[in-house]
Amino acid sequence: MVPVEKALQLVDSHITSTNKIVTISVSESLGFVLANDVLSPINMPPFRQSAMDGYALGSIEEKAFSLKGEVQAGDDKDPELKKGEAIRIFTGAPVPSEAKAVIMQEKIEVNDNKVILLESVKPNANIRPAGEQIKEGEIALTKGTIINAAGIGYLATLGITHIEVYKKPSIAIITTGNELVPPGQKLKYGQIYESNSVMLSSALKTSGFADISFYKVEDEYQATRSIIEKTIKQCDVVLISGGISVGDYDFVGKALRDLQVDEIFYKVKQKPGKPLYFAQKDRTTIFALPGNPASSLSCFYVYVLPALQKTSGLQDYRLKRSTSISSSGYSKKGERAEFLKAIEKDNTVTILDGQASSMLRSFALANALVYLPEEVSEINPGDTIQIINLP
Amino acid sequence: MVPVEKALQLVDSHITSTNKIVTISVSESLGFVLANDVLSPINMPPFRQSAMDGYALGSIEEKAFSLKGEVQAGDDKDPELKKGEAIRIFTGAPVPSEAKAVIMQEKIEVNDNKVILLESVKPNANIRPAGEQIKEGEIALTKGTIINAAGIGYLATLGITHIEVYKKPSIAIITTGNELVPPGQKLKYGQIYESNSVMLSSALKTSGFADISFYKVEDEYQATRSIIEKTIKQCDVVLISGGISVGDYDFVGKALRDLQVDEIFYKVKQKPGKPLYFAQKDRTTIFALPGNPASSLSCFYVYVLPALQKTSGLQDYRLKRSTSISSSGYSKKGERAEFLKAIEKDNTVTILDGQASSMLRSFALANALVYLPEEVSEINPGDTIQIINLP
Repeated sequence: MVPVEKALQLVDSHITSTNKIVTISVSESLGFVLANDVLSPINMPPFRQSAMDGYALGSIEEKAFSLKGEVQAGDDKDPELKKGEAIRIFTGAPVPSEAKAVIMQEKIEVNDNKVILLESVKPNANIRPAGEQIKEGEIALTKGTIINAAGIGYLATLGITHIEVYKKPSIAIITTGNELVPPGQKLKYGQIYESNSVMLSSALKTSGFADISFYKVEDEYQATRSIIEKTIKQCDVVLISGGISVGDYDFVGKALRDLQVDEIFYKVKQKPGKPLYFAQKDRTTIFALPGNPASSLSCFYVYVLPALQKTSGLQDYRLKRSTSISSSGYSKKGERAEFLKAIEKDNTVTILDGQASSMLRSFALANALVYLPEEVSEINPGDTIQIINLP
Repeated sequence: MVPVEKALQLVDSHITSTNKIVTISVSESLGFVLANDVLSPINMPPFRQSAMDGYALGSIEEKAFSLKGEVQAGDDKDPELKKGEAIRIFTGAPVPSEAKAVIMQEKIEVNDNKVILLESVKPNANIRPAGEQIKEGEIALTKGTIINAAGIGYLATLGITHIEVYKKPSIAIITTGNELVPPGQKLKYGQIYESNSVMLSSALKTSGFADISFYKVEDEYQATRSIIEKTIKQCDVVLISGGISVGDYDFVGKALRDLQVDEIFYKVKQKPGKPLYFAQKDRTTIFALPGNPASSLSCFYVYVLPALQKTSGLQDYRLKRSTSISSSGYSKKGERAEFLKAIEKDNTVTILDGQASSMLRSFALANALVYLPEEVSEINPGDTIQIINLP
């Protein structure tokens, strides 16, 4: 049985950032991490662009200009513009090559096809030079950048349609347990509903992991072994829900041993989630999570999610811990570290009722886990305590 | 021109929580808000359930018991169990009706088909009574709960496959501007890439809004009017990107006026995003966002997202402001309030370079917006400043 901090460190040291790089569509790249610098294929703006609705002026010394036509945004024209001439222009339109400045429409009067300036204007006023934001060949975004909505917009403004990113892991979820039936069926005596696969896949989706395959296996050695073997070959990460125990029907443990995976730890000095198991084989990472839904989800957030994020190239992948002021009292029984479902708001954290490892209800209301290290046995209202914010 | 706080208040007071309720699959309910209390259709656990691998005992006074068989998880049997008799049992298995307790396997020895207790055992030890978590007909989750991964797991454990939630709004994104071409094409002189639709839809997806339809309209009155009219009829929210201005080709403004929408405000005393427009017609909300991508996204996070969240039934829908310590200095020009792209980490906020309203690059790196109210003209390093954390 390893302590929590040791288990976290073992997961961290055994997971390496992926070196698998894939090319994906910018529109599908939300949350991915750039595997290479992205260079701009164009100047942005691509041409001298008007920043205002107004008038482009052929010179800036005069007070009155002859109006010679107009340029709208999107117009593919570069009209001649001589000293003393003006052209009506709109925001985003290409400024004629010979224009010396653009004056805002609020600062002129038009009389008899003459544009009269009410104020003087500085050279290049209200003109965005070509390449002002970025020039062709310059770095638009650097390797390691996480793509957010603004990043997608930015790449689109440069006309970029595809980018190279770190591949997110493909994940298999294997559920075990003869007692489990899918929601929607009628329960027979001794049966319960299977919830871990939909719960874990929802937690994965919340954090942007979508390449998930599902397997349900009977409590039988050969079937268990062959599904584990197949998923280790096909996927980057295998999550096994339920089945590692000292019971006589521990087919998962036997299959993993027989497949000669490298067990890194089994059992963590924590509550819930004591029977957590972590192993690797070839380049596949295996977590066997407790069958108990709330224990399983707790282990997912604390151990599995940081591992998945590191694999996806995130630099800031570690479990995010912060502190908050407890409004609750709590006494720990036993020596294991505990993770308690809680609601954090405005720097105050309330520990929820119903912490038994079988209870999912409190988890459904929680937005944080309180972390009680081994050495802390009691929380009193007003104490500053460690919390983990849930995604 | 309305001040920022007035604009925020006007959006809030004109948006009502939806009263549209839809029934959706639990597996697709991530981020939705329950429109009704959900009652449990079963006792959970549905039967007396063993919490351990061990032995179910027919009585608790004896020290030695005859071993009479076993019950695995998922077994549909309720074997007789008399005084002095024991049955091998596993975690999750149904405990025989006549059993008085379950003892952990670590606390017994087996000799010659006899189970010898090493410790005494208390009545009902290691037995989870039927309905311990929740009883049939009790409230599982209350109206107003936001469904997270744990909530999905919890509803699945109760066998619930469908729930009633508040409908999320259907959203139309209309992009205007003759100068815009889709990324992937070659630019002609005067053209730029259209990025707002993919950027706004990515921002919508990040916050769980998926019912999005896209429209591109030429700068032409009849086409503009008919698309706006159609989307107002079909969608809950219409986002128009670009087009409201005082320019001679302001077909959006003219179409909206001619369609007799109720203009609530036009122009906010802020930078970026001055030309923001907010209106309603019948039950549809209309935002016209600046065409400039960075300005558009800033208005989206500050005004549109809170409105969408309120419409979806979230109680905590308002713009989330907090404070942080600035590591940057900044001088404001002009009197408008400003929203500045920034990175916030460990309670320190750094204002990024490149705040010009046309610049998306800084937004791509930002995780927060710094809010500089009208009355604040300067930030010095060390100042406590208001920030808005981006999703």
